[in-house]
Amino acid sequence: MFIRQSVVKACQQSILALLVSGAFLQGATAANKNDTAPLFTEKELQTAAWIRDAARSDNLSYKILESLTTEVGPRMAGTPGDARAVAWAEAKFKELGFDKVWKEPVTYPSWTRGIEKAEIVAPFPQPLSITALGNSVATPKNGLRAELVEFANLKEMMAAPDEKVQGKIVFINHRMQNSNEYGLVVPGRSAGASEAARKGAVAIVIRSVGTDNHRFPHTGVMQYAPGVAQIPAAAMSNSDADMVARMIKRGKPVSLKLELSSAAAGTYTSYNVIGEMTGSELPNEYVLIGGHLDSWDLGTGAIDDGAGCAITMAAAEFIKRNGLKPKRSIRVVLFANEEQGLFGGKAYLAAHQNQIAQIQAAAEADLGQGPVTKMASFVRTEALPLVKQMHSVLAPLGIEPGDNNAFPGPDMGDLRMAGAASFGLALKADDYFDLHHTPDDTFDKIEPARINQAATTYAVFAWMAAQAPISFGSGQELLKAAKK
Amino acid sequence: MFIRQSVVKACQQSILALLVSGAFLQGATAANKNDTAPLFTEKELQTAAWIRDAARSDNLSYKILESLTTEVGPRMAGTPGDARAVAWAEAKFKELGFDKVWKEPVTYPSWTRGIEKAEIVAPFPQPLSITALGNSVATPKNGLRAELVEFANLKEMMAAPDEKVQGKIVFINHRMQNSNEYGLVVPGRSAGASEAARKGAVAIVIRSVGTDNHRFPHTGVMQYAPGVAQIPAAAMSNSDADMVARMIKRGKPVSLKLELSSAAAGTYTSYNVIGEMTGSELPNEYVLIGGHLDSWDLGTGAIDDGAGCAITMAAAEFIKRNGLKPKRSIRVVLFANEEQGLFGGKAYLAAHQNQIAQIQAAAEADLGQGPVTKMASFVRTEALPLVKQMHSVLAPLGIEPGDNNAFPGPDMGDLRMAGAASFGLALKADDYFDLHHTPDDTFDKIEPARINQAATTYAVFAWMAAQAPISFGSGQELLKAAKK
Repeated sequence: MFIRQSVVKACQQSILALLVSGAFLQGATAANKNDTAPLFTEKELQTAAWIRDAARSDNLSYKILESLTTEVGPRMAGTPGDARAVAWAEAKFKELGFDKVWKEPVTYPSWTRGIEKAEIVAPFPQPLSITALGNSVATPKNGLRAELVEFANLKEMMAAPDEKVQGKIVFINHRMQNSNEYGLVVPGRSAGASEAARKGAVAIVIRSVGTDNHRFPHTGVMQYAPGVAQIPAAAMSNSDADMVARMIKRGKPVSLKLELSSAAAGTYTSYNVIGEMTGSELPNEYVLIGGHLDSWDLGTGAIDDGAGCAITMAAAEFIKRNGLKPKRSIRVVLFANEEQGLFGGKAYLAAHQNQIAQIQAAAEADLGQGPVTKMASFVRTEALPLVKQMHSVLAPLGIEPGDNNAFPGPDMGDLRMAGAASFGLALKADDYFDLHHTPDDTFDKIEPARINQAATTYAVFAWMAAQAPISFGSGQELLKAAKK
Repeated sequence: MFIRQSVVKACQQSILALLVSGAFLQGATAANKNDTAPLFTEKELQTAAWIRDAARSDNLSYKILESLTTEVGPRMAGTPGDARAVAWAEAKFKELGFDKVWKEPVTYPSWTRGIEKAEIVAPFPQPLSITALGNSVATPKNGLRAELVEFANLKEMMAAPDEKVQGKIVFINHRMQNSNEYGLVVPGRSAGASEAARKGAVAIVIRSVGTDNHRFPHTGVMQYAPGVAQIPAAAMSNSDADMVARMIKRGKPVSLKLELSSAAAGTYTSYNVIGEMTGSELPNEYVLIGGHLDSWDLGTGAIDDGAGCAITMAAAEFIKRNGLKPKRSIRVVLFANEEQGLFGGKAYLAAHQNQIAQIQAAAEADLGQGPVTKMASFVRTEALPLVKQMHSVLAPLGIEPGDNNAFPGPDMGDLRMAGAASFGLALKADDYFDLHHTPDDTFDKIEPARINQAATTYAVFAWMAAQAPISFGSGQELLKAAKK
């Protein structure tokens, strides 16, 4: 018997509630239409529904995140906080009773922030609230000073004549209006420096890529294009960008002094930290969930991505604690250095590239505290009725069905490109880009009900994916079928 | 004729609208009950109602504040920003067409902020977001390190045995729950250092006196008690205070390293900057409105108190621009160094102490961007029917009537204690203590409709007070009557 007595009682109550509400029945009926396809058994569906209801009153994800943000705090890749986070993760996995806990090395170039200061020096002297972008080189010692030239976005800057940019500090004033615009606005951060340097700019200072109206600059990684001069790159807060734009609008030249001492700092080896609940029947097949363990240094990485770590650790632990024995293994991976270039995800793929077919399903949590609002899949056609059953169990949590072209999350993106069956458990990002990469990404922003819904969703997902009667189809065939 | 043709037309429309709405009629009827008391004439009431309606579509207060925060920005007393603010204020008064513009010296001890850093060094190393409190002394060079001892509030700390505090850094963890609790919580900031020092503490770090949930520390002035050791004093953000409290709750000693280089910096002379619209009949009697020109250095002083300066400058300018000629003078005073000890207010009283009786009414704006929600008065009994009429005109702006024991604002507090008739035009402070004394006090937080309502209220108030048929009674008699 794999459910404790107290659990059985709660389970029976849950099932009763479900039958009364009709939610569960609806799902089962819909799935039963496809009589020939392999389906979850009635008992498996009941257990999944029990997890959904019982886990909602659990609070473990909140507690794990409290522990990480209090006992470790900032954990930028390559810093002492990174090493403390790895130690914390190993210890926490063990404390939570994971069957196997191990770490896998991830080596990457390290970067240090150093001094970061900026001030308008003319016509109206004012200090600015700025931060260096990850990977930025330093300014000359004691800073550099030049006139600002404003552009509405990266594209407009790229279209400008070189003379307009030559010798200036480029100011990309591209406001991110809502959480859907990250992809639209972020190229100014990641590629702006090199594009500005091509035109002879001496530095770039962008409006932060963030949706808040506070005086927090948002950091984030940038990359230099090969063969182009490397110029310093920083972001100012939205409040500062508003103010600088107002100054520029007055028509007089506006000069900025920028001082950064950020620098590359050699090579560092951190770790993907992995905890596994080993499967009872198919231990070498596994459901892969997780988040990234590193954070930026400015805040304590509560929503980015302590939440993802906590959600997925709690999900697996809930299954184990309640005596449920999944057929397949459930593997929680806390990835190293996502922020500076997805190094943990790449290292995981490199270490496990011959095991793609063993991945039953991959789903990362890296968009904040939840709740999950949608479930998309990327599975072979034969498994779609199972996905439908999974969704039917999850629907009462307010989760919409998605398409069959899911993206599992940043660190698992390469796995999917290599053919891993994937799920996209979309987290509600309404506050995510307010806090993202700022000093304000702290634990006090977390609402227990939100993070708990996400942990519950991951628990149901992980359990059902692990129990599924057939493989979800990871491998080249899946990629080929998707291309058709 | 003291109203331009276009204004007359708008005025007639306004009066019509008022009659239809009944709002104006109501006020007039109520006031007319007291037939023997001197009252505003029908024409004066009509003009006041016209100001109320016409000024609502004005936008000058917003523009003045945009100018101050963009062209001057931070203007902490004694800094170059202070001098730039004085120059800005003189120029702006002249540009706005004030009849007389002058400045009066205000001398005070100056203080510099310097370096401010804090980090938890054990058991869980984490940097904190802190700021020095105004007047704080420095730590030893390279900082000091000691164990934290937490208290729920100042009172609890004062009641604790000395042994508990000796050699420690006191952490006063008193959360300000809403904007009404400033008076309750602020003693921990202003008096905490000396009270902690009496018990042998080596420093004090308080939870910020602020209602926000962001990673901004709130600065603010503190005072050392004579004859007590001076220990460094700082505030941490609410987010940091939450985190430190969580650490302490784990039961192990929590050690903090604090580094401040703040210091007293000699004597500085700044100025109260004054603009006057001179009265046509009683030029030596004046309605006194204003705000304080200095701000803290962390933000740009948009709500504290650029808003108060802008509201009152715009109010007086609106009257002048529309050709209205007040009987009494309207004097706008932008006070120097309110933040570090009400120096501008004290200097104004010292320079004008023989003219208390000439103050028709005093009302300062120093609680943010508005709107005004209540009007209280402090006038002789004979003037109360006039106050009632003033309120009737203002009521459609959503302004409640108050008592006759008004406080005119921090810089005018001493004037009131000396017998100046006063008005308390209460500003809605819902967001004020979120932003107050933080880097986040910036212009982007200002809503035109809010600040404009406040400027409109001050224009109506200033006009009516200047036109009143009798004196509001400033002088010793008023104080005596109030004490009865």
